[in-house]
Amino acid sequence: MQKPLILITNDDGIRAKGLRALVEIAKPLGRVLVVAPEAERSGQSHAITTQTPLRLRSVQDYDSSANVTAYVCNGTPVDCVKLGMTHLVSDVPDVVLSGVNHGSNSSISVIYSGTIAAAQEASLYGIPSMGLSLLDYSPNADFSPVQAIGSDLIKKMLTLGVSKGICLNVNFPAIPVEEIRGVKFCRQANGTWDEDYNLRHDPYGGEYFWLSGSLINNEPLATDTDEWALANGYVSVTPIQPDMTCYAELERLKAKWQ
Amino acid sequence: MQKPLILITNDDGIRAKGLRALVEIAKPLGRVLVVAPEAERSGQSHAITTQTPLRLRSVQDYDSSANVTAYVCNGTPVDCVKLGMTHLVSDVPDVVLSGVNHGSNSSISVIYSGTIAAAQEASLYGIPSMGLSLLDYSPNADFSPVQAIGSDLIKKMLTLGVSKGICLNVNFPAIPVEEIRGVKFCRQANGTWDEDYNLRHDPYGGEYFWLSGSLINNEPLATDTDEWALANGYVSVTPIQPDMTCYAELERLKAKWQ
Repeated sequence: MQKPLILITNDDGIRAKGLRALVEIAKPLGRVLVVAPEAERSGQSHAITTQTPLRLRSVQDYDSSANVTAYVCNGTPVDCVKLGMTHLVSDVPDVVLSGVNHGSNSSISVIYSGTIAAAQEASLYGIPSMGLSLLDYSPNADFSPVQAIGSDLIKKMLTLGVSKGICLNVNFPAIPVEEIRGVKFCRQANGTWDEDYNLRHDPYGGEYFWLSGSLINNEPLATDTDEWALANGYVSVTPIQPDMTCYAELERLKAKWQ
Repeated sequence: MQKPLILITNDDGIRAKGLRALVEIAKPLGRVLVVAPEAERSGQSHAITTQTPLRLRSVQDYDSSANVTAYVCNGTPVDCVKLGMTHLVSDVPDVVLSGVNHGSNSSISVIYSGTIAAAQEASLYGIPSMGLSLLDYSPNADFSPVQAIGSDLIKKMLTLGVSKGICLNVNFPAIPVEEIRGVKFCRQANGTWDEDYNLRHDPYGGEYFWLSGSLINNEPLATDTDEWALANGYVSVTPIQPDMTCYAELERLKAKWQ
Protein backbone atom coordinates (compact mmCIF):
# COMPACT_ATOMS: atom_id res chain seq x y z
CA MET A 1 0.00 0.00 0.00
CA GLN A 2 1.24 3.46 -0.87
CA LYS A 3 2.08 5.75 2.00
CA PRO A 4 -0.38 8.62 2.56
CA LEU A 5 0.11 11.77 0.51
CA ILE A 6 0.55 14.88 2.65
CA LEU A 7 0.25 18.27 1.00
CA ILE A 8 1.93 21.05 2.98
CA THR A 9 1.71 24.80 2.52
CA ASN A 10 2.13 27.93 4.63
CA ASP A 11 1.93 31.69 4.33
CA ASP A 12 5.43 32.63 5.42
CA GLY A 13 6.94 31.29 2.19
CA ILE A 14 9.11 28.37 1.10
CA ARG A 15 12.17 29.32 3.15
CA ALA A 16 10.38 29.77 6.49
CA LYS A 17 11.68 27.83 9.47
CA GLY A 18 8.11 26.92 10.44
CA LEU A 19 7.49 25.21 7.09
CA ARG A 20 10.71 23.23 7.52
CA ALA A 21 9.58 22.17 11.01
CA LEU A 22 6.27 20.91 9.60
CA VAL A 23 7.97 19.02 6.76
CA GLU A 24 10.21 17.28 9.32
CA ILE A 25 7.12 16.30 11.34
CA ALA A 26 5.36 15.00 8.22
CA LYS A 27 8.22 13.05 6.62
CA PRO A 28 7.86 9.93 8.81
CA LEU A 29 4.08 9.93 8.22
CA GLY A 30 3.96 9.71 4.41
CA ARG A 31 4.92 11.17 1.05
CA VAL A 32 5.26 14.94 1.32
CA LEU A 33 4.32 17.45 -1.38
CA VAL A 34 5.22 21.03 -0.47
CA VAL A 35 3.48 23.80 -2.44
CA ALA A 36 4.36 27.06 -0.73
CA PRO A 37 4.28 30.73 -1.66
CA GLU A 38 7.58 31.88 -3.16
CA ALA A 39 7.66 34.79 -0.69
CA GLU A 40 5.86 35.80 2.49
CA ARG A 41 2.10 36.07 1.97
CA SER A 42 0.89 36.80 5.49
CA GLY A 43 -2.60 38.17 6.11
CA GLN A 44 -3.91 36.81 2.81
CA SER A 45 -6.98 35.17 4.33
CA HIS A 46 -8.92 33.12 1.76
CA ALA A 47 -7.70 35.26 -1.17
CA ILE A 48 -7.36 33.67 -4.59
CA THR A 49 -5.51 35.03 -7.60
CA THR A 50 -7.68 35.83 -10.60
CA GLN A 51 -6.08 38.96 -12.07
CA THR A 52 -2.55 37.71 -12.77
CA PRO A 53 -1.36 34.36 -14.17
CA LEU A 54 -0.40 31.76 -11.61
CA ARG A 55 2.92 30.01 -11.92
CA LEU A 56 4.48 26.95 -10.30
CA ARG A 57 8.20 26.22 -10.05
CA SER A 58 9.86 23.03 -8.86
CA VAL A 59 12.34 23.56 -5.99
CA GLN A 60 14.92 20.81 -6.50
CA ASP A 61 17.11 21.65 -3.54
CA TYR A 62 14.41 21.89 -0.86
CA ASP A 63 14.91 18.45 0.66
CA SER A 64 17.31 15.62 -0.15
CA SER A 65 14.78 12.91 0.77
CA ALA A 66 13.11 11.11 -2.16
CA ASN A 67 9.97 11.29 -0.02
CA VAL A 68 9.67 15.07 -0.40
CA THR A 69 8.78 17.05 -3.53
CA ALA A 70 8.61 20.84 -3.37
CA TYR A 71 7.17 23.61 -5.49
CA VAL A 72 6.72 27.33 -5.12
CA CYS A 73 3.75 29.26 -6.40
CA ASN A 74 3.49 33.01 -6.99
CA GLY A 75 -0.02 33.05 -5.50
CA THR A 76 -1.64 32.95 -2.09
CA PRO A 77 -1.72 30.00 0.34
CA VAL A 78 -5.20 29.07 -0.94
CA ASP A 79 -3.89 29.17 -4.53
CA CYS A 80 -1.12 26.78 -3.44
CA VAL A 81 -3.67 24.26 -2.16
CA LYS A 82 -6.04 24.58 -5.13
CA LEU A 83 -3.28 24.39 -7.74
CA GLY A 84 -1.42 21.64 -5.89
CA MET A 85 -4.54 19.51 -5.53
CA THR A 86 -5.71 19.86 -9.12
CA HIS A 87 -2.47 20.03 -11.07
CA LEU A 88 0.38 18.35 -9.17
CA VAL A 89 -1.19 15.14 -7.92
CA SER A 90 -3.21 12.43 -9.62
CA ASP A 91 -5.01 11.47 -6.41
CA VAL A 92 -6.60 13.69 -3.81
CA PRO A 93 -4.11 14.25 -0.93
CA ASP A 94 -4.84 12.22 2.21
CA VAL A 95 -4.13 15.15 4.47
CA VAL A 96 -3.32 18.85 4.11
CA LEU A 97 -1.19 20.67 6.68
CA SER A 98 -0.57 24.39 6.75
CA GLY A 99 2.12 26.20 8.72
CA VAL A 100 3.78 26.15 11.06
CA ASN A 101 2.88 29.82 11.11
CA HIS A 102 5.26 32.29 12.74
CA GLY A 103 2.70 33.95 15.02
CA SER A 104 -0.71 33.27 16.52
CA ASN A 105 -3.88 32.52 14.56
CA SER A 106 -6.20 32.47 17.54
CA SER A 107 -9.34 34.55 18.16
CA ILE A 108 -10.31 36.95 15.36
CA SER A 109 -6.87 36.58 13.72
CA VAL A 110 -8.27 33.44 12.08
CA ILE A 111 -10.28 35.51 9.59
CA TYR A 112 -7.13 37.25 8.31
CA SER A 113 -4.99 34.12 8.26
CA GLY A 114 -3.71 32.64 5.02
CA THR A 115 -2.40 29.66 6.98
CA ILE A 116 -5.80 28.63 8.28
CA ALA A 117 -7.60 29.50 5.03
CA ALA A 118 -5.32 27.06 3.18
CA ALA A 119 -6.31 24.26 5.57
CA GLN A 120 -9.94 25.27 5.32
CA GLU A 121 -9.81 25.21 1.52
CA ALA A 122 -8.72 21.56 1.58
CA SER A 123 -11.39 20.66 4.13
CA LEU A 124 -14.10 21.89 1.72
CA TYR A 125 -13.15 18.94 -0.48
CA GLY A 126 -13.35 16.47 2.41
CA ILE A 127 -9.63 16.26 3.14
CA PRO A 128 -8.59 16.12 6.83
CA SER A 129 -6.71 19.36 7.31
CA MET A 130 -4.92 21.22 10.05
CA GLY A 131 -3.46 24.70 10.33
CA LEU A 132 -0.63 24.98 12.87
CA SER A 133 0.71 28.19 14.42
CA LEU A 134 3.29 29.05 17.06
CA LEU A 135 2.89 32.18 19.18
CA ASP A 136 6.23 33.62 18.11
CA TYR A 137 6.51 35.94 15.10
CA SER A 138 10.31 35.88 14.91
CA PRO A 139 11.86 34.28 11.80
CA ASN A 140 14.14 32.24 14.05
CA ALA A 141 11.38 31.06 16.45
CA ASP A 142 11.91 27.84 18.42
CA PHE A 143 9.46 25.27 17.03
CA SER A 144 10.28 22.54 19.55
CA PRO A 145 6.78 22.61 21.17
CA VAL A 146 5.30 21.82 17.75
CA GLN A 147 7.95 19.21 17.02
CA ALA A 148 7.17 17.50 20.35
CA ILE A 149 3.38 17.36 19.99
CA GLY A 150 2.51 17.99 16.32
CA SER A 151 2.97 14.45 15.06
CA ASP A 152 0.61 12.97 17.68
CA LEU A 153 -2.02 15.61 16.92
CA ILE A 154 -1.93 14.86 13.19
CA LYS A 155 -2.14 11.09 13.78
CA LYS A 156 -5.05 11.55 16.15
CA MET A 157 -6.90 13.74 13.64
CA LEU A 158 -6.51 11.00 11.04
CA THR A 159 -7.71 8.30 13.44
CA LEU A 160 -10.78 10.19 14.67
CA GLY A 161 -11.58 11.89 11.40
CA VAL A 162 -12.90 15.40 11.00
CA SER A 163 -16.30 16.15 9.44
CA LYS A 164 -16.32 17.36 5.82
CA GLY A 165 -15.83 21.09 5.59
CA ILE A 166 -14.27 21.35 9.05
CA CYS A 167 -10.55 21.87 9.67
CA LEU A 168 -8.55 22.17 12.86
CA ASN A 169 -6.97 25.45 13.90
CA VAL A 170 -4.12 24.51 16.24
CA ASN A 171 -2.08 27.12 18.14
CA PHE A 172 1.01 26.38 20.24
CA PRO A 173 2.19 28.62 23.10
CA ALA A 174 5.81 29.73 22.72
CA ILE A 175 7.03 28.14 25.96
CA PRO A 176 9.44 25.30 26.69
CA VAL A 177 7.98 21.87 25.89
CA GLU A 178 8.11 20.76 29.54
CA GLU A 179 5.88 23.67 30.56
CA ILE A 180 3.06 22.75 28.14
CA ARG A 181 0.09 21.58 30.21
CA GLY A 182 -1.67 19.64 27.46
CA VAL A 183 -4.07 20.02 24.55
CA LYS A 184 -7.35 21.89 25.02
CA PHE A 185 -10.35 22.00 22.67
CA CYS A 186 -11.66 25.54 22.58
CA ARG A 187 -13.89 27.93 20.80
CA GLN A 188 -12.54 31.02 19.03
CA ALA A 189 -12.31 33.90 21.52
CA ASN A 190 -14.25 37.07 20.78
CA GLY A 191 -11.47 39.51 20.00
CA THR A 192 -10.80 42.62 17.94
CA TRP A 193 -7.66 44.22 16.65
CA ASP A 194 -6.93 47.62 18.12
CA GLU A 195 -5.22 49.15 15.14
CA ASP A 196 -3.56 52.20 13.86
CA TYR A 197 -1.70 53.20 10.75
CA ASN A 198 1.84 54.39 10.92
CA LEU A 199 2.03 57.35 8.53
CA ARG A 200 5.38 57.92 6.80
CA HIS A 201 6.73 59.95 3.92
CA ASP A 202 8.81 58.58 1.09
CA PRO A 203 11.87 60.51 -0.19
CA TYR A 204 9.63 62.10 -2.85
CA GLY A 205 7.14 63.54 -0.36
CA GLY A 206 4.45 60.90 -0.86
CA GLU A 207 2.48 59.61 2.13
CA TYR A 208 2.28 55.91 2.86
CA PHE A 209 1.01 53.75 5.70
CA TRP A 210 1.95 50.62 7.60
CA LEU A 211 -0.71 48.81 9.56
CA SER A 212 0.10 48.24 13.23
CA GLY A 213 -1.95 47.02 16.14
CA SER A 214 -2.57 44.47 18.83
CA LEU A 215 -5.26 41.92 19.58
CA ILE A 216 -7.76 42.71 22.34
CA ASN A 217 -9.43 39.71 23.97
CA ASN A 218 -12.99 40.91 24.67
CA GLU A 219 -13.70 38.06 27.08
CA PRO A 220 -10.54 37.57 29.17
CA LEU A 221 -12.41 35.71 31.91
CA ALA A 222 -13.92 33.01 29.67
CA THR A 223 -12.01 29.77 30.22
CA ASP A 224 -13.32 27.92 27.13
CA THR A 225 -11.55 30.07 24.53
CA ASP A 226 -8.36 29.59 22.54
CA GLU A 227 -6.94 32.79 24.03
CA TRP A 228 -7.41 31.47 27.58
CA ALA A 229 -5.88 28.09 26.72
CA LEU A 230 -2.80 29.68 25.16
CA ALA A 231 -2.34 32.15 28.01
CA ASN A 232 -2.46 29.24 30.43
CA GLY A 233 0.09 26.97 28.79
CA TYR A 234 -2.17 24.76 26.65
CA VAL A 235 -2.08 23.94 22.97
CA SER A 236 -5.45 25.13 21.60
CA VAL A 237 -7.45 23.15 19.03
CA THR A 238 -10.48 24.83 17.44
CA PRO A 239 -12.56 23.15 14.73
CA ILE A 240 -13.61 25.77 12.21
CA GLN A 241 -16.41 25.70 9.66
CA PRO A 242 -17.15 27.43 6.35
CA ASP A 243 -20.79 28.31 7.16
CA MET A 244 -20.69 31.96 8.16
CA THR A 245 -24.45 32.25 8.79
CA CYS A 246 -25.36 33.71 12.19
CA TYR A 247 -28.47 31.63 12.94
CA ALA A 248 -29.49 33.58 16.05
CA GLU A 249 -29.43 36.86 14.10
CA LEU A 250 -31.23 35.19 11.19
CA GLU A 251 -34.15 34.27 13.49
CA ARG A 252 -34.19 37.70 15.14
CA LEU A 253 -34.25 39.54 11.80
CA LYS A 254 -36.86 37.20 10.31
CA ALA A 255 -39.17 37.95 13.24
CA LYS A 256 -38.65 41.72 13.20
CA TRP A 257 -38.36 42.51 9.49
CA GLN A 258 -41.85 43.20 8.16
CA MET B 1 -27.75 67.39 13.38
CA GLN B 2 -25.15 66.15 10.92
CA LYS B 3 -26.30 63.69 8.31
CA PRO B 4 -25.06 60.12 8.80
CA LEU B 5 -21.61 59.27 7.45
CA ILE B 6 -21.67 56.39 4.99
CA LEU B 7 -18.38 54.73 4.06
CA ILE B 8 -18.55 52.84 0.77
CA THR B 9 -16.07 50.41 -0.74
CA ASN B 10 -16.08 47.50 -3.20
CA ASP B 11 -13.73 45.00 -4.76
CA ASP B 12 -14.27 45.80 -8.43
CA GLY B 13 -12.42 49.10 -8.13
CA ILE B 14 -13.23 52.81 -8.20
CA ARG B 15 -14.54 52.88 -11.78
CA ALA B 16 -16.98 49.97 -11.45
CA LYS B 17 -20.58 50.57 -12.45
CA GLY B 18 -21.73 48.71 -9.31
CA LEU B 19 -19.89 51.15 -7.03
CA ARG B 20 -21.48 54.06 -8.84
CA ALA B 21 -24.93 52.46 -8.38
CA LEU B 22 -24.31 52.14 -4.63
CA VAL B 23 -23.10 55.75 -4.34
CA GLU B 24 -26.27 56.93 -6.06
CA ILE B 25 -28.37 54.90 -3.59
CA ALA B 26 -26.42 56.29 -0.63
CA LYS B 27 -26.31 59.98 -1.61
CA PRO B 28 -29.87 60.81 -0.41
CA LEU B 29 -29.19 59.00 2.88
CA GLY B 30 -26.18 60.91 4.15
CA ARG B 31 -22.61 62.10 3.61
CA VAL B 32 -20.74 59.62 1.43
CA LEU B 33 -17.06 58.70 1.75
CA VAL B 34 -15.86 56.36 -0.99
CA VAL B 35 -12.60 54.47 -0.32
CA ALA B 36 -12.23 51.93 -3.12
CA PRO B 37 -9.41 49.86 -4.57
CA GLU B 38 -7.68 51.66 -7.43
CA ALA B 39 -8.11 48.54 -9.60
CA GLU B 40 -10.10 45.32 -9.48
CA ARG B 41 -9.34 43.28 -6.36
CA SER B 42 -11.80 40.41 -6.70
CA GLY B 43 -11.41 37.24 -4.65
CA GLN B 44 -9.37 39.03 -1.98
CA SER B 45 -11.42 37.70 0.94
CA HIS B 46 -10.32 39.22 4.26
CA ALA B 47 -6.77 39.88 3.02
CA ILE B 48 -4.83 42.80 4.48
CA THR B 49 -1.66 44.37 3.15
CA THR B 50 1.37 44.07 5.41
CA GLN B 51 4.27 43.58 2.97
CA THR B 52 3.99 46.71 0.86
CA PRO B 53 3.23 50.32 1.86
CA LEU B 54 -0.40 51.37 1.61
CA ARG B 55 -1.26 54.55 -0.21
CA LEU B 56 -4.38 56.71 -0.48
CA ARG B 57 -5.16 59.13 -3.28
CA SER B 58 -7.99 61.64 -3.44
CA VAL B 59 -10.18 61.29 -6.56
CA GLN B 60 -11.42 64.81 -7.21
CA ASP B 61 -13.49 64.03 -10.28
CA TYR B 62 -15.47 61.09 -8.91
CA ASP B 63 -18.67 62.96 -8.09
CA SER B 64 -19.67 66.58 -8.46
CA SER B 65 -21.85 66.56 -5.33
CA ALA B 66 -20.37 68.26 -2.25
CA ASN B 67 -21.89 65.37 -0.34
CA VAL B 68 -19.44 62.83 -1.80
CA THR B 69 -15.71 62.49 -1.13
CA ALA B 70 -13.72 59.77 -2.89
CA TYR B 71 -10.34 58.13 -2.43
CA VAL B 72 -8.56 55.19 -3.97
CA CYS B 73 -6.29 52.85 -2.07
CA ASN B 74 -3.68 50.47 -3.50
CA GLY B 75 -4.74 47.75 -1.05
CA THR B 76 -7.56 45.26 -0.62
CA PRO B 77 -11.21 46.04 0.20
CA VAL B 78 -10.52 45.34 3.91
CA ASP B 79 -7.54 47.74 3.77
CA CYS B 80 -9.90 50.37 2.32
CA VAL B 81 -12.24 50.02 5.30
CA LYS B 82 -9.51 49.93 7.94
CA LEU B 83 -7.58 52.85 6.49
CA GLY B 84 -10.73 54.84 5.74
CA MET B 85 -12.08 54.38 9.27
CA THR B 86 -8.85 55.23 11.07
CA HIS B 87 -7.29 57.86 8.85
CA LEU B 88 -9.93 59.65 6.77
CA VAL B 89 -12.69 60.36 9.28
CA SER B 90 -12.71 61.88 12.72
CA ASP B 91 -15.83 59.97 13.79
CA VAL B 92 -16.69 56.32 13.30
CA PRO B 93 -18.84 55.94 10.15
CA ASP B 94 -22.55 55.39 10.86
CA VAL B 95 -22.83 52.70 8.22
CA VAL B 96 -20.49 50.83 5.87
CA LEU B 97 -21.70 49.56 2.49
CA SER B 98 -19.69 47.36 0.15
CA GLY B 99 -20.42 46.69 -3.51
CA VAL B 100 -22.49 46.54 -5.52
CA ASN B 101 -20.45 43.52 -6.56
CA HIS B 102 -20.53 42.40 -10.16
CA GLY B 103 -21.39 38.75 -9.51
CA SER B 104 -22.84 36.58 -6.78
CA ASN B 105 -21.49 36.26 -3.24
CA SER B 106 -23.90 33.55 -2.13
CA SER B 107 -23.11 30.11 -0.72
CA ILE B 108 -19.40 29.31 -0.27
CA SER B 109 -18.40 32.26 -2.48
CA VAL B 110 -18.72 34.39 0.65
CA ILE B 111 -15.42 33.07 2.02
CA TYR B 112 -13.52 34.28 -1.08
CA SER B 113 -15.33 37.61 -1.32
CA GLY B 114 -13.53 40.88 -0.74
CA THR B 115 -16.87 42.68 -0.95
CA ILE B 116 -18.36 40.84 2.00
CA ALA B 117 -15.11 40.82 4.00
CA ALA B 118 -15.04 44.64 3.80
CA ALA B 119 -18.55 44.82 5.30
CA GLN B 120 -17.61 42.20 7.90
CA GLU B 121 -14.51 44.18 8.89
CA ALA B 122 -16.64 47.22 9.74
CA SER B 123 -19.14 45.10 11.67
CA LEU B 124 -16.34 43.93 13.99
CA TYR B 125 -16.21 47.51 15.26
CA GLY B 126 -19.95 47.66 15.80
CA ILE B 127 -20.86 49.53 12.62
CA PRO B 128 -24.04 48.43 10.80
CA SER B 129 -22.71 47.05 7.52
CA MET B 130 -24.01 45.48 4.36
CA GLY B 131 -22.37 43.81 1.39
CA LEU B 132 -24.45 43.97 -1.80
CA SER B 133 -24.00 41.81 -4.91
CA LEU B 134 -25.84 41.40 -8.20
CA LEU B 135 -25.83 38.04 -9.99
CA ASP B 136 -24.28 39.44 -13.14
CA TYR B 137 -20.51 39.48 -13.67
CA SER B 138 -20.54 41.74 -16.72
CA PRO B 139 -18.93 45.20 -16.36
CA ASN B 140 -22.04 46.75 -17.89
CA ALA B 141 -24.57 44.85 -15.71
CA ASP B 142 -28.01 46.37 -15.14
CA PHE B 143 -28.18 47.41 -11.48
CA SER B 144 -31.83 48.49 -11.54
CA PRO B 145 -32.98 45.71 -9.14
CA VAL B 146 -30.52 47.07 -6.56
CA GLN B 147 -31.49 50.66 -7.28
CA ALA B 148 -35.16 49.77 -6.75
CA ILE B 149 -34.78 47.92 -3.44
CA GLY B 150 -31.36 48.78 -2.00
CA SER B 151 -32.31 52.02 -0.30
CA ASP B 152 -35.20 50.44 1.63
CA LEU B 153 -32.97 47.56 2.73
CA ILE B 154 -30.31 49.92 4.08
CA LYS B 155 -32.90 52.05 5.92
CA LYS B 156 -34.48 48.97 7.44
CA MET B 157 -31.09 47.67 8.61
CA LEU B 158 -30.49 51.01 10.35
CA THR B 159 -33.94 50.99 11.98
CA LEU B 160 -33.77 47.41 13.26
CA GLY B 161 -30.06 47.39 14.02
CA VAL B 162 -27.70 44.48 13.53
CA SER B 163 -25.85 42.83 16.41
CA LYS B 164 -22.17 43.75 16.87
CA GLY B 165 -19.90 41.61 14.72
CA ILE B 166 -22.71 40.66 12.33
CA CYS B 167 -23.08 42.07 8.83
CA LEU B 168 -25.66 41.45 6.13
CA ASN B 169 -24.76 39.63 2.93
CA VAL B 170 -27.35 40.71 0.37
CA ASN B 171 -27.56 39.19 -3.12
CA PHE B 172 -29.85 40.38 -5.91
CA PRO B 173 -31.03 38.17 -8.77
CA ALA B 174 -30.25 39.61 -12.21
CA ILE B 175 -33.87 39.81 -13.36
CA PRO B 176 -36.18 42.72 -14.20
CA VAL B 177 -37.36 44.59 -11.09
CA GLU B 178 -41.01 43.65 -11.69
CA GLU B 179 -40.12 39.94 -11.55
CA ILE B 180 -38.52 40.17 -8.08
CA ARG B 181 -40.75 38.30 -5.64
CA GLY B 182 -39.48 39.94 -2.45
CA VAL B 183 -36.74 39.75 0.18
CA LYS B 184 -35.94 36.43 1.84
CA PHE B 185 -33.83 35.83 4.94
CA CYS B 186 -31.69 32.76 4.33
CA ARG B 187 -28.79 30.74 5.53
CA GLN B 188 -25.66 30.28 3.40
CA ALA B 189 -26.13 27.25 1.12
CA ASN B 190 -23.66 24.39 1.40
CA GLY B 191 -21.77 24.67 -1.87
CA THR B 192 -18.37 23.95 -3.35
CA TRP B 193 -16.53 25.24 -6.38
CA ASP B 194 -15.88 22.64 -9.04
CA GLU B 195 -12.65 24.02 -10.34
CA ASP B 196 -9.94 23.49 -12.84
CA TYR B 197 -6.89 25.37 -14.00
CA ASN B 198 -6.54 26.47 -17.56
CA LEU B 199 -2.90 25.73 -18.47
CA ARG B 200 -1.30 28.07 -21.03
CA HIS B 201 2.18 28.83 -22.31
CA ASP B 202 3.64 32.29 -22.57
CA PRO B 203 5.66 33.33 -25.68
CA TYR B 204 8.84 32.28 -23.85
CA GLY B 205 7.70 28.70 -23.20
CA GLY B 206 6.77 29.23 -19.54
CA GLU B 207 3.66 27.56 -18.13
CA TYR B 208 0.98 29.57 -16.38
CA PHE B 209 -2.51 28.96 -15.08
CA TRP B 210 -5.88 30.67 -14.88
CA LEU B 211 -8.41 29.46 -12.34
CA SER B 212 -11.80 28.52 -13.77
CA GLY B 213 -14.81 26.79 -12.30
CA SER B 214 -18.44 26.87 -11.32
CA LEU B 215 -20.36 26.73 -8.06
CA ILE B 216 -22.09 23.47 -7.15
CA ASN B 217 -25.05 23.76 -4.76
CA ASN B 218 -24.79 20.63 -2.61
CA GLU B 219 -28.34 20.98 -1.32
CA PRO B 220 -30.50 22.07 -4.28
CA LEU B 221 -33.74 20.95 -2.61
CA ALA B 222 -33.32 23.00 0.58
CA THR B 223 -35.66 26.00 0.42
CA ASP B 224 -34.09 28.01 3.27
CA THR B 225 -30.80 28.81 1.50
CA ASP B 226 -29.54 31.87 -0.36
CA GLU B 227 -29.07 29.79 -3.51
CA TRP B 228 -32.72 28.71 -3.47
CA ALA B 229 -33.96 32.25 -2.86
CA LEU B 230 -31.92 33.65 -5.74
CA ALA B 231 -32.92 30.88 -8.14
CA ASN B 232 -36.56 31.60 -7.29
CA GLY B 233 -36.56 35.34 -7.84
CA TYR B 234 -35.94 36.61 -4.30
CA VAL B 235 -33.34 39.00 -2.94
CA SER B 236 -31.38 36.97 -0.34
CA VAL B 237 -30.28 38.42 3.00
CA THR B 238 -27.89 36.38 5.14
CA PRO B 239 -26.49 37.66 8.44
CA ILE B 240 -22.88 36.51 8.76
CA GLN B 241 -20.69 36.23 11.81
CA PRO B 242 -16.95 36.26 12.53
CA ASP B 243 -16.96 33.24 14.90
CA MET B 244 -15.74 30.34 12.76
CA THR B 245 -15.94 27.75 15.56
CA CYS B 246 -17.92 24.63 14.65
CA TYR B 247 -19.55 23.92 18.02
CA ALA B 248 -20.99 20.52 17.04
CA GLU B 249 -17.56 19.30 15.96
CA LEU B 250 -16.01 20.83 19.08
CA GLU B 251 -18.28 18.71 21.29
CA ARG B 252 -17.74 15.59 19.19
CA LEU B 253 -13.95 15.91 19.30
CA LYS B 254 -13.89 16.76 23.01
CA ALA B 255 -15.81 13.55 23.73
CA LYS B 256 -13.71 11.32 21.49
CA TRP B 257 -10.21 12.74 21.91
CA GLN B 258 -8.57 10.99 24.87
